[in-house]
Amino acid sequence: MPNTFGKLFSVTTWGESHGAAVGAVVEGCPPRLPLTAAEIQAELDRRRPGQSDIVTPRQEEDRVEILAGLFEGRTTGAPISMLVRNADQRPGAYDEMRDKFRPSHADYTYQAKFGIRDHRGGGRSSARETIGRVAAGAIAKKILGHPNPAGGAGIEIRAFLTHVHDIAAPAEALAAFPTLAEVEATAVRCPHLPTAAQMIERIKAVRSEGDSVGGVIECRVRGVPPGLGEPVFDRLEADLAKAMLSLPATKGFEIGSGFAGARMRGSEHNDLFETRDGRVRTMTNRSGGTQGGISNGEEIVFRVAFKPTATVLRSQRTVDIHGAATDLMGRGRHDPCVVPRAVPIVEAMTALVLVDHWMRHAAQNQVFRF
Amino acid sequence: MPNTFGKLFSVTTWGESHGAAVGAVVEGCPPRLPLTAAEIQAELDRRRPGQSDIVTPRQEEDRVEILAGLFEGRTTGAPISMLVRNADQRPGAYDEMRDKFRPSHADYTYQAKFGIRDHRGGGRSSARETIGRVAAGAIAKKILGHPNPAGGAGIEIRAFLTHVHDIAAPAEALAAFPTLAEVEATAVRCPHLPTAAQMIERIKAVRSEGDSVGGVIECRVRGVPPGLGEPVFDRLEADLAKAMLSLPATKGFEIGSGFAGARMRGSEHNDLFETRDGRVRTMTNRSGGTQGGISNGEEIVFRVAFKPTATVLRSQRTVDIHGAATDLMGRGRHDPCVVPRAVPIVEAMTALVLVDHWMRHAAQNQVFRF
Amino acid sequence: MPNTFGKLFSVTTWGESHGAAVGAVVEGCPPRLPLTAAEIQAELDRRRPGQSDIVTPRQEEDRVEILAGLFEGRTTGAPISMLVRNADQRPGAYDEMRDKFRPSHADYTYQAKFGIRDHRGGGRSSARETIGRVAAGAIAKKILGHPNPAGGAGIEIRAFLTHVHDIAAPAEALAAFPTLAEVEATAVRCPHLPTAAQMIERIKAVRSEGDSVGGVIECRVRGVPPGLGEPVFDRLEADLAKAMLSLPATKGFEIGSGFAGARMRGSEHNDLFETRDGRVRTMTNRSGGTQGGISNGEEIVFRVAFKPTATVLRSQRTVDIHGAATDLMGRGRHDPCVVPRAVPIVEAMTALVLVDHWMRHAAQNQVFRF
Amino acid sequence: MPNTFGKLFSVTTWGESHGAAVGAVVEGCPPRLPLTAAEIQAELDRRRPGQSDIVTPRQEEDRVEILAGLFEGRTTGAPISMLVRNADQRPGAYDEMRDKFRPSHADYTYQAKFGIRDHRGGGRSSARETIGRVAAGAIAKKILGHPNPAGGAGIEIRAFLTHVHDIAAPAEALAAFPTLAEVEATAVRCPHLPTAAQMIERIKAVRSEGDSVGGVIECRVRGVPPGLGEPVFDRLEADLAKAMLSLPATKGFEIGSGFAGARMRGSEHNDLFETRDGRVRTMTNRSGGTQGGISNGEEIVFRVAFKPTATVLRSQRTVDIHGAATDLMGRGRHDPCVVPRAVPIVEAMTALVLVDHWMRHAAQNQVFRF
Repeated sequence: MPNTFGKLFSVTTWGESHGAAVGAVVEGCPPRLPLTAAEIQAELDRRRPGQSDIVTPRQEEDRVEILAGLFEGRTTGAPISMLVRNADQRPGAYDEMRDKFRPSHADYTYQAKFGIRDHRGGGRSSARETIGRVAAGAIAKKILGHPNPAGGAGIEIRAFLTHVHDIAAPAEALAAFPTLAEVEATAVRCPHLPTAAQMIERIKAVRSEGDSVGGVIECRVRGVPPGLGEPVFDRLEADLAKAMLSLPATKGFEIGSGFAGARMRGSEHNDLFETRDGRVRTMTNRSGGTQGGISNGEEIVFRVAFKPTATVLRSQRTVDIHGAATDLMGRGRHDPCVVPRAVPIVEAMTALVLVDHWMRHAAQNQVFRF
Repeated sequence: MPNTFGKLFSVTTWGESHGAAVGAVVEGCPPRLPLTAAEIQAELDRRRPGQSDIVTPRQEEDRVEILAGLFEGRTTGAPISMLVRNADQRPGAYDEMRDKFRPSHADYTYQAKFGIRDHRGGGRSSARETIGRVAAGAIAKKILGHPNPAGGAGIEIRAFLTHVHDIAAPAEALAAFPTLAEVEATAVRCPHLPTAAQMIERIKAVRSEGDSVGGVIECRVRGVPPGLGEPVFDRLEADLAKAMLSLPATKGFEIGSGFAGARMRGSEHNDLFETRDGRVRTMTNRSGGTQGGISNGEEIVFRVAFKPTATVLRSQRTVDIHGAATDLMGRGRHDPCVVPRAVPIVEAMTALVLVDHWMRHAAQNQVFRF
Repeated sequence: MPNTFGKLFSVTTWGESHGAAVGAVVEGCPPRLPLTAAEIQAELDRRRPGQSDIVTPRQEEDRVEILAGLFEGRTTGAPISMLVRNADQRPGAYDEMRDKFRPSHADYTYQAKFGIRDHRGGGRSSARETIGRVAAGAIAKKILGHPNPAGGAGIEIRAFLTHVHDIAAPAEALAAFPTLAEVEATAVRCPHLPTAAQMIERIKAVRSEGDSVGGVIECRVRGVPPGLGEPVFDRLEADLAKAMLSLPATKGFEIGSGFAGARMRGSEHNDLFETRDGRVRTMTNRSGGTQGGISNGEEIVFRVAFKPTATVLRSQRTVDIHGAATDLMGRGRHDPCVVPRAVPIVEAMTALVLVDHWMRHAAQNQVFRF
Repeated sequence: MPNTFGKLFSVTTWGESHGAAVGAVVEGCPPRLPLTAAEIQAELDRRRPGQSDIVTPRQEEDRVEILAGLFEGRTTGAPISMLVRNADQRPGAYDEMRDKFRPSHADYTYQAKFGIRDHRGGGRSSARETIGRVAAGAIAKKILGHPNPAGGAGIEIRAFLTHVHDIAAPAEALAAFPTLAEVEATAVRCPHLPTAAQMIERIKAVRSEGDSVGGVIECRVRGVPPGLGEPVFDRLEADLAKAMLSLPATKGFEIGSGFAGARMRGSEHNDLFETRDGRVRTMTNRSGGTQGGISNGEEIVFRVAFKPTATVLRSQRTVDIHGAATDLMGRGRHDPCVVPRAVPIVEAMTALVLVDHWMRHAAQNQVFRF
């Protein structure tokens, strides 16, 4: 089921950009979790359009309605159904896209696959689909935030921008685990303020040229106990990689040392063990928090590359659905850089992976004890 | 089922490095495919130890036995069970590992997860597990090599090394789709011979120092029809990323422009459409063969980063299973660079992803036609 | 995902009896299928309450809204999201059930499992959940009704009552495949009119006594090509059995000769083969349309036993959530016999199984041809 | 994956009747479980041919080899791979079946589905496939037999024959939970000795006539805590029904009151609650141990109908693979009644369902606690 993610704690998303609504069904949520629509809304507000002057001005408040799965403010173990009505529809605004394929969008491939496509705003391939992911991720984050079954204080997930175009935050500025306030301090969600200022300037500049830019998000997770992740195919980093590459506009994933690690020697790269604070720790973290696909208790650190937004306000060569050469003028509302709004989405997907893997780990290892 | 990969065409692997055997069960194989053990053996021979002087001297011929699923030389639609006996076992060689955690191996995390581990040669976390993947991948490759249902001439998958340590093949040398002969020409499996020579020299040098190095594999696939890959979670690149990050020692994945794409503008990055040879093509391929998670008929191009082998023939700081500080001297047979032997494994996983996605695509789109 | 049924063509249902709504998400639907809300509504109308004088008088029109997955009247390959608002809610009507467990309902087991339950009208365990199944089944039935890929004229599924309480339709009266009109001719959905009249009388009689009765549904399917069903666990009858036992109030399933077959000899029971009308046929159909778990092209014939409705308008002994003995007076609107309304649900589940199995069969056997 | 059963604790079986071997891979087994081949062998010995004078004289000792997943006598959390070589092969004995379809066997349907079949002894459709199920079930039974996580003394599963042909054990004779010794006391595995004697006599009689008979198995499970089973599709009885109908020769499944329940009134059928021995109990058990698809702590009681063995030593009308009418003389070794040997298989499948559901229940309800 390709619209479903997760095995034990799963989300199924549905909906198109300009259909009646988008939504999600979450299965496997533990019962008795206190939950309000406001908690989900808070995460949706972090991804919604129109939240700052560097993102798309599309005006949608993306108001979530919880239709099922709660009783007197708590989850019941039943599926949680959430719905967000699509508000800002512009009939006619997408007429040209009916017959022409936008370059580097999914128009052509959806047409080739299904022989039909909802061309309005990208239809199912629109990033509006991620609303359902963020809503489900809000629940997963809440679960992880509780003092956890392994005795920890709760898991914190923090994603933020390290790069926009050729602007990079200095590595030393990101050494400490950033606070949520630091990340949310600017519209661009880079916790290093001088870099953030440059990024914002760059985004405004390319927007004024009708162009767009890509960027990189780093995500860190602390508080994960050792043991999450499954040999051999469902390694924690494998499922994180899948989660990230399932997001629109992503082109790469790396964990720990990543591609730079490929240029190292084993003697430099290995994370030596020591006992610290009464438990087994590594002295360095080039592994990025997993070894053999299983969490080792260190911070999980990974990065995700996003390509520049495919929509540019320029005329581009393309073909129509009959294969005839034509030009298409990009128009309308778009994000000159999607990466800042992708921060809560990356966090949501990370939370979904972790809750699911935690349940899977416990099912095999903590139910029957020998 | 974490030891199983694929939904319709799936492989389940089993076995430990120093147990009786390793093996795989393939489910969902189309019936009537002519298949011999020799065809599977040929791929296993590409990954087996001892094949050249730059890989581990462990001597195993890794002889495959097909136990089920064939009848008179053809598949029957029943599960194909394949087994490789472990031959080169050295009782006692791993005694020290029983109590000590090797840095950057899976010893500690397996112990933390399961409370028990088969310490001999890494047990289940050993790269010997990939024998089952390669055996299954050999079947998938054979299926893909046939003239295909979309009318194509068959799919070709070619993986090869682009980097070892800080040695990189020049991009222009890899512009053309390399032939198998070019890749297999050297033990290092880089089709650019001058670079290959340097790589071999470097690997021998680090080996002589008891050290190891990492590297990067590029994989290209041609002949893939448009339409493979599923919205929204099971995008083709998401499943490829998962497949690659499920391999031992991998730290990163990127498709098309990858991390470099994050530093580009939309106007540079977009792949413009044209009609060429009677079908819709892109003029460039920064997308790497997929758009919106679905193949667009261009070459699929991705890269995988491998860290340096964790086993180094040096004394390293670590802890034992009681948490006490100790030293561990790496010893024995190891690969100073696993990347050349990973080439057939990357190809195998790619083939598994593609056959599975092809079946999934056809199931939804080509059974009932409206 | 326990709220999801099917592997390639799947439905996820959500919603509680007295929550805001109930609904379903269908994944894997072939694209370009013409589909209207009216077609789904027609099936919902067959299961809705208040449709006749022998079923519950709960007044709900169960109006379906399609929120996603359609474009200009056709499916797009995207998930189809359907929603039915709950209308006839009676705050306070269920207060007594908050603290007391109704006998032979799911109150106690949900409480034991989840530690919380939505007690209003049975919450998630209510038969209102089957609205989503019927909506999804309506789509599956439409797919099956088309001239099919195996060259057939379309598949027809017909369920009907053979027993209510101790009233049984004579076997010879059901020898021919009943028409839909014959089934729908009476509120009780038994195509043998004299028996139907008796059944209706019996249901009215037990209702007047505040009691309830069970019954048996037979389901027949014609037009199924040979080859559907998977060795070895996903036999067609295994998935049908699961589908039926997943319905509220079901206690048994049998296919073909069923339990009576256990009292036969092999020489009487075997279905001998002959060639008829140019294809391989059996002379009898004690197998019920499958052999070795795979359809053989004969009519699929199975029966499902339903227990009497657990709600009776009498005082019954029970315990409260503290375990204290108490009495509970059944009250309110209920079906004295749920079986007539279960007919469209049985058909829906059957259709879901068949479409899913057809896709699975084709994926393995008809994509790559050797 | 149709050769795989279970979601968290799963078994994949492989192998054909006259191929090299049959086997199974078990995934998800809890680590550190003490396990020996002898424990598995004991269950295999209960199903093997040649164990008594009323079953097939095929001579196979069915010796199991554990190839992976154990370390020093304990499970490790890795997949457990088990293999049984096929010994008693008779080349040439099955030549006639190559071209002719045996009535009520799977010959025709496998040919229709796959376009190829291993005709020797039924190939994949042979009941030898159940060896893998029994081996996996032996592990599941061992897990369930331990004092369990809910504080119970361990779960006991007991299957036995209630009917052979028209011979039925009196209901009162089966009121108490039979001991294993009672079941194993006779070759026919009916714990009521006078009935068992009759059954054996009947089986010998039909065998002497070259004929066969069917029968019914009842299975009871005690010690199951309340809460196992998932709303809404994966009800405990739904998964049990699927498990049973996935066995060769099964035609029906009923739980608790079953088909007889359909002839009852609600006022007779309902299981009233009381508090007994400090916990909520029902006074009767027409529900058969589940309500709303979830175990209620009472005995789970279900019955499975088996048709008479399709192989009869008589000449039967059939067709060949070209559709031409012909006769086929049954010959060779067969079971005149498969039901006694099916007892350990029914127990194995029951154990697989219960372990899997227990893990699933715990994953949702006992990992994160709110």
